[in-house]
Amino acid sequence: MRTSIATVSLSGSLTEKLTAASRAGFDGVEIFENDLLASPLTPEEIRSRCADLGLTIDLYQPMRDTEALPEEDFARALRRARHKFELMRRLGADTVLVCSSVAPQAVDDDDLAAAQLSRLADLAAGSGVRIAYEALAWGRHISTWDHAWRVVRAAGHPALGTCLDSFHILSRSAGPEDVEGIARIPGEKIFFLQLADAPRLAMDVLQWSRHYRCFPGQGGFDVAGLVRQVLRTGYDGPLSLEVFNDVFRQAEAGPTARDAQRSLLLLQEEVALAAPPAPVVPTGVAFAELLTPDAQPVAALLGALGFTRTARHRGKPVDLFQRDQATVLVNTGPAERRDGTRLAAVGLASPDPAGAVRRAEALLAPVLPRRRAAEDAALEAVAAPDGTELFFCAAPGADGPDWRADFEAAGPAPEAGAVCRIDHLALTQHWHHFDEAALFHRSVLGLRPQESVDVADPYGLQRSRAVTSDDGGVRIVLSVGAAPSDDTVHAQHLAFGTDDVVAAARRFRAAGGHLLPIPANYYDDLAARFEFADGELETYRELGILYDRDAYGEFRHCYTRTVGHVFVELLQRDGGYRGYGAPNAAVRLAAQHA
Amino acid sequence: MRTSIATVSLSGSLTEKLTAASRAGFDGVEIFENDLLASPLTPEEIRSRCADLGLTIDLYQPMRDTEALPEEDFARALRRARHKFELMRRLGADTVLVCSSVAPQAVDDDDLAAAQLSRLADLAAGSGVRIAYEALAWGRHISTWDHAWRVVRAAGHPALGTCLDSFHILSRSAGPEDVEGIARIPGEKIFFLQLADAPRLAMDVLQWSRHYRCFPGQGGFDVAGLVRQVLRTGYDGPLSLEVFNDVFRQAEAGPTARDAQRSLLLLQEEVALAAPPAPVVPTGVAFAELLTPDAQPVAALLGALGFTRTARHRGKPVDLFQRDQATVLVNTGPAERRDGTRLAAVGLASPDPAGAVRRAEALLAPVLPRRRAAEDAALEAVAAPDGTELFFCAAPGADGPDWRADFEAAGPAPEAGAVCRIDHLALTQHWHHFDEAALFHRSVLGLRPQESVDVADPYGLQRSRAVTSDDGGVRIVLSVGAAPSDDTVHAQHLAFGTDDVVAAARRFRAAGGHLLPIPANYYDDLAARFEFADGELETYRELGILYDRDAYGEFRHCYTRTVGHVFVELLQRDGGYRGYGAPNAAVRLAAQHA
Repeated sequence: MRTSIATVSLSGSLTEKLTAASRAGFDGVEIFENDLLASPLTPEEIRSRCADLGLTIDLYQPMRDTEALPEEDFARALRRARHKFELMRRLGADTVLVCSSVAPQAVDDDDLAAAQLSRLADLAAGSGVRIAYEALAWGRHISTWDHAWRVVRAAGHPALGTCLDSFHILSRSAGPEDVEGIARIPGEKIFFLQLADAPRLAMDVLQWSRHYRCFPGQGGFDVAGLVRQVLRTGYDGPLSLEVFNDVFRQAEAGPTARDAQRSLLLLQEEVALAAPPAPVVPTGVAFAELLTPDAQPVAALLGALGFTRTARHRGKPVDLFQRDQATVLVNTGPAERRDGTRLAAVGLASPDPAGAVRRAEALLAPVLPRRRAAEDAALEAVAAPDGTELFFCAAPGADGPDWRADFEAAGPAPEAGAVCRIDHLALTQHWHHFDEAALFHRSVLGLRPQESVDVADPYGLQRSRAVTSDDGGVRIVLSVGAAPSDDTVHAQHLAFGTDDVVAAARRFRAAGGHLLPIPANYYDDLAARFEFADGELETYRELGILYDRDAYGEFRHCYTRTVGHVFVELLQRDGGYRGYGAPNAAVRLAAQHA
Repeated sequence: MRTSIATVSLSGSLTEKLTAASRAGFDGVEIFENDLLASPLTPEEIRSRCADLGLTIDLYQPMRDTEALPEEDFARALRRARHKFELMRRLGADTVLVCSSVAPQAVDDDDLAAAQLSRLADLAAGSGVRIAYEALAWGRHISTWDHAWRVVRAAGHPALGTCLDSFHILSRSAGPEDVEGIARIPGEKIFFLQLADAPRLAMDVLQWSRHYRCFPGQGGFDVAGLVRQVLRTGYDGPLSLEVFNDVFRQAEAGPTARDAQRSLLLLQEEVALAAPPAPVVPTGVAFAELLTPDAQPVAALLGALGFTRTARHRGKPVDLFQRDQATVLVNTGPAERRDGTRLAAVGLASPDPAGAVRRAEALLAPVLPRRRAAEDAALEAVAAPDGTELFFCAAPGADGPDWRADFEAAGPAPEAGAVCRIDHLALTQHWHHFDEAALFHRSVLGLRPQESVDVADPYGLQRSRAVTSDDGGVRIVLSVGAAPSDDTVHAQHLAFGTDDVVAAARRFRAAGGHLLPIPANYYDDLAARFEFADGELETYRELGILYDRDAYGEFRHCYTRTVGHVFVELLQRDGGYRGYGAPNAAVRLAAQHA
């Protein structure tokens, strides 16, 4: 189906918005009136700019307070409408959004509403314009889709139809039964369909709508369920996004538009309007790659953690460190990246790397140019919204190039012994792209976003959200500070899972590693909250091991000091514990600041 | 009365919080458990740090889920409590906050609640601890102050009293009648009083409480009314602030603590607990002072606006420009300030400059060191939260030094002719200090904060709020971007009022000034919304004059280009128009970006 986006959903000037929408692959736009008013382009110039960009103008919006008014007010509304229809003629837009009245002088009289909308439609028809009438969730008398549709049906005017908006409908909906009747509207009377999702917030609906809307799949609404109902009517207009969001208003328009288009691709897949290549869920983390201007401190940290440098890339300054099932690459080039050690790339073990890349491309993940020599393995990679490079590596037994073949042995074989695996990776997100990141990992990689949690850093709240594969083979924790910050505490980290974190911590210490010291008060509190076996708590206290418990099991974890932007977590999950020790995060963050 | 603040209200480590509280003049603190857990200091060290800083520990908080529980859960709660009472002994804290249970296993049984609280109080009394029991607004069964008080009364235990929290009470209160009964609680049974204000938001009360609390006087609650009820009981404990606020969590602790103490000073004045020197409301703006590394572009702008350089400071590189009632000082020193032209100081015409300074000092406004020669007028100044220097100048006829005596004539007398006055000044605030700024201007200067308005800049929402004297003699518009930004569009501005903005704009243009061009689409929309006399709209379109209308009158305004961080607005208010042209701000901001 055709896709469209309201200019109010994107940041910048009107021309920046149009360019971003076009580049992200939208077929059309809704022109939000304030964007037009603030633009130095004439309506004719906007029309021609859209045509050059391959965009149709699917809707002009909004007109407000036009129905169920005292005659004198309605006359003024008609006067305004005449001006706007003339503007639309110049713009080449043939559908206008009319929102249900909120004016205090509007009266509760459906017959009057239908009669006045009919008169407005007469005027519109004379200018070749169609009226798409929508119930605002906070409309004074008309605030539900079915009420708006009853008035449209009563008016019975060919130039008058209804506009359905998923926010206005679903913000007031108690369940699927509230939207079932939509399927009985004749499709040709649905003049427009606006889509937005939103987090489930118990708050004033107007504020909720104006500040917290998000793209389908980023919130808590069943947007796909609504679209299914609409499709049953035979509606064949565009799927159009109309999202008022304080963060999107600030974020760069290009990435937001791509995020928006991705949300519609996923939605179309969900409602069987499109069948992109199926997601190929990664089964594990083949490697984590650290980029560093100075390999020594990283090598020292990994060495103390029991890793051995076992191989070196044949053509690049990349060392491979291994311990049991965990592989870490240490990359000292390219030299221009001098911003400190960071987690730059992740190798995802994929049962079908080629399929994974097809999926990623179809879902608009930026495919990275291959920077490799002719003899290197033909690994494909895409960039996550935070810039992390995600490589699709063949899982054991899967078809695909063997990235390990690019490495030659360069040291003794890894020490046999304790279990070690990459339990999870924690990546810092720019606050403009937190929702985008979750949707990216869900749609491109088929990972499942978990609940968002707030974490109290001493200097501001952080938010974090894990995206995981169902079996826990891949877990990525996305986190974001409350505001832009270069603070190294808001760092990326690598978490290694082990079967005995106490032994791992002791080993690390004995090898000269420094564990993050945890305040004694924390352990006094643990003693108040839980009962421990004799000596257990003293061991944790000695090593700086944190403890948590959920309905499924137990979690013990400790932290190294930070190298550049990266630190390491050692952890032990027992009995199916599902979380990441969130109740301990505030204490850990304070210790990192200290 | 003694003042106290919960450590959770301030940003940083526990020691940073304690230091900030002490410096701002608090007598005591509530120690928030998570701050203690994350601190490397032992309880004994915290106790001694507080003593060194002159702070008592008035409350340890919180204990949760301790009453109306199945016996097994209650036994665990008692076990936790034993640990916490021991901690409090080490800390030297004798009162603990116990919040009403939210646990799903809590039962709706007041007798059980009273019996278990009584047992808890027995245990507490043995450790010299008192229990202050508080109803959380979202408590499972006990969620109102009167319900909590009934349970405390029924328990009848000397070590058990109630804690009143203005947020929990007022967030659920429909009117003053809901808090009248508080005056009937015996004062000695109110063990603690926690104060917070909040903006009136229709949202989930827990989210509202955890993220949006603010200091008394910054929100929409009648905190003073509640305190009056509590004082009638004979309560003689501290007035203690407990504010969970996402912005305060990030802002520097020092200014936040001072803002907090200022809010309590104002509150104590309102309830007649304190009588600081009365506010002296300024009657006008004596001058606006621009600091610039290069006087030429500023002088050119002022010249085109019809200002004349009439005087020069006797000892400093400061020129005085005058037009009718408007005075602008242009300061080219000190040389170290090279960050572009900015509005650095405002001279406020005061009917009692000495009284105004006493008020400012009493309300914790930082009094600026005088940087003047022996012969200069002894002008006093304070720093606003945004750093703007506010000088208290003698209004005509008032006692006080004559700042004009520091200037000697340096040019021709000002041109007689068109009316010109400083209508308002617009100052950009750091987003951490927006609420602080409004409270500062209200408490220190006696100005009245108006409603906050959201303004859609193309690159993010801005918020702005005017503080004004009742007769409009002083109007300051405080504005803040959605995020930190050095963008010059988020600029300060000087708005000059005139009786004929069309003439003023024409004069400015004829003198070579450049007015901000406004898009033609804006004028097409004006034509749709309003009817104008023949030629009127064409004049506005030609000059770039914006138009607005409210219930009281009309507003016409236009803008110059920006010099450094400053631009000028020319405006005409007719018939008592009260606003600042907010509906035009989005168009103006877009034009400034273009």
